[in-house]
Amino acid sequence: MADDFVTVTWTPHGTVRLIDQTRLPTEEVYIECRTIEEVADAIRTMRVRGAPAIGVTAAMGLALGAQTIQAENFNAFFAALEGMGSLFTEFFAALEAMGSLLMRTRPTAVNLAWGVRRLLHLARKARDLPLVEIKAALVAEARAMQAEDIRINRAMGQHGQGLLPEQARVLTHCNAGGLATAGYGTAVGVIRAAAEAGKRIMVWVDETRPLLQGARLTAWELQRAGIPATLITDNMAGHFMARGQVDVVVVGADRIARNGDVANKIGTYSVALLARAHGIPFYVAAPISTLDLNLTDGSQIPIEERAPDEVTHIGGRRVAPAGIRVANPAFDVTPASFVDAIITERGVARAPYDVSLPRLAGEA
Amino acid sequence: MADDFVTVTWTPHGTVRLIDQTRLPTEEVYIECRTIEEVADAIRTMRVRGAPAIGVTAAMGLALGAQTIQAENFNAFFAALEGMGSLFTEFFAALEAMGSLLMRTRPTAVNLAWGVRRLLHLARKARDLPLVEIKAALVAEARAMQAEDIRINRAMGQHGQGLLPEQARVLTHCNAGGLATAGYGTAVGVIRAAAEAGKRIMVWVDETRPLLQGARLTAWELQRAGIPATLITDNMAGHFMARGQVDVVVVGADRIARNGDVANKIGTYSVALLARAHGIPFYVAAPISTLDLNLTDGSQIPIEERAPDEVTHIGGRRVAPAGIRVANPAFDVTPASFVDAIITERGVARAPYDVSLPRLAGEA
Repeated sequence: MADDFVTVTWTPHGTVRLIDQTRLPTEEVYIECRTIEEVADAIRTMRVRGAPAIGVTAAMGLALGAQTIQAENFNAFFAALEGMGSLFTEFFAALEAMGSLLMRTRPTAVNLAWGVRRLLHLARKARDLPLVEIKAALVAEARAMQAEDIRINRAMGQHGQGLLPEQARVLTHCNAGGLATAGYGTAVGVIRAAAEAGKRIMVWVDETRPLLQGARLTAWELQRAGIPATLITDNMAGHFMARGQVDVVVVGADRIARNGDVANKIGTYSVALLARAHGIPFYVAAPISTLDLNLTDGSQIPIEERAPDEVTHIGGRRVAPAGIRVANPAFDVTPASFVDAIITERGVARAPYDVSLPRLAGEA
Repeated sequence: MADDFVTVTWTPHGTVRLIDQTRLPTEEVYIECRTIEEVADAIRTMRVRGAPAIGVTAAMGLALGAQTIQAENFNAFFAALEGMGSLFTEFFAALEAMGSLLMRTRPTAVNLAWGVRRLLHLARKARDLPLVEIKAALVAEARAMQAEDIRINRAMGQHGQGLLPEQARVLTHCNAGGLATAGYGTAVGVIRAAAEAGKRIMVWVDETRPLLQGARLTAWELQRAGIPATLITDNMAGHFMARGQVDVVVVGADRIARNGDVANKIGTYSVALLARAHGIPFYVAAPISTLDLNLTDGSQIPIEERAPDEVTHIGGRRVAPAGIRVANPAFDVTPASFVDAIITERGVARAPYDVSLPRLAGEA
């Protein structure tokens, strides 16, 4: 049950190709980014979104940007006089600036910074190689991250599907699917793996206002995968839980603090609280790269506030009076106490998360 | 702080004039119904909606229909031979059929049946009058119900505003405003009354998918009334509660069972549960006509399922893949245990509701 679409890829022409997620589900359009600015813009405008997907896309964007750095043209002798060091120092300063550009596009998902840092780290390690080789290594690393992300999601799927019963009505929020990753998906990957294992799965898809990633993306993916799905508005989840029609909730994550607090798409907190009140297990599926063990708890996670017109307009059409005040936080934080398990590619973490998460992450 | 619009009115030309709520907030358009079928259609398509408003509209629709009943043309002698009774029996049978037509338009709000039954009751009482006088009395009664509804809402506002603190950030769901009533509003009436009493009120407006009555109607009304309001998507309510930014919740109701279970717009249940989990008072404002004391609890309230395209399309634009399954219950039931008080025009009811509600309703 592989995806029949590709979220993000490095093309043979040395460009970054993305499925334009703002055009789904009515149009399947791919865009080709030729500059790092185009990649940054695609992330900012959410043509590509989802924590793991923007991690890989940022890495590809940085690799793309690296190709354009003309450090060879600097006067190395002059640079040395100024105390600026070698050609590599020039190159690396430019690369870091590009990384900052990418990291400023979306503040909440930690994978973006993780993707950028991973390439910066590689560049530093390769500092004694000719720049042309460093540039090639950056492309290779970004492409490896894409392939790795799919392997990670499949491993996560295997670990996670064991948590689902033989027959399960699974509720998910937003899109933590193939489109939110390099492919296969995190939460949707768990659902796919359960279906592949022969379990009878039906999915409740929260439409996920304001940007409707559930209606537009998750419904589309599940339909393509042949997994039965029923679309609902976000405010119906509690109603169907109360009626005993939801067996389990699985969602993705944009950043997870050391104590297990989870930042994810706005509305996740309400779903988690409702699930707890109804005795329904609430699981988070996310790769190790989504952990931010430097943060002791979720209160330290920056929450992106997006433009009011995402709420006041739908598909370009005004649905609220002009001049009305709007709040539009893109994420919320679900306390670890509401999270029954965090599913990663290295296994399933349970509370206390400040013990289980660092252990999975390989900290001493 | 009266409304500067009229939800529904009986015109001097003997027609029923409605503000078309499907066109708000971008266009303020009034439609004029000349037949009972046009009124029924306006209710079914939600050009007019809100339990008290459709109660008054149904009464006006029935009064409109009554004018067209040509019972005088029946052969009274022949009818008597057939055991069908008098002219009045003919007239009343036709009136009852019209009432059934209206009652079939929307199943959940009990006010609709209440409005129809009130006019049928009046007709029965007036059975010995000439038909032309009965017809005039029906119009007068429907018009009286409109004026009465506004008085009721103002009384409810007075009782309810006492429950709000001097400074209150009030969350409301859907539209229980002037547009949902003959004017002033139930939940919004409580908010208006608090503002009129000099309290510092700010309102969180849930947009209320799928039909966006919060974004389109409540936001519009509050803006006109000069009451500060912030529009949010439904899935943000829990987030702002968790941040301590919501002091109280006030919503309307479509039907209330004898035990205090409340049917209201889909999503109300989730808001009530979230409010309880955060220690935030949850109040329901509804006229006595919304009580259905014949139902022992909310499980007996019929829940209207509406068309899938309300979820898959917004403003005529498709937002979900073709062929996706959809659930679209228009209402949910909030258990009485989550309701801190029910505000009526006769005072505030508290648990146990099966004692307090019948007492307010004037049952022995």
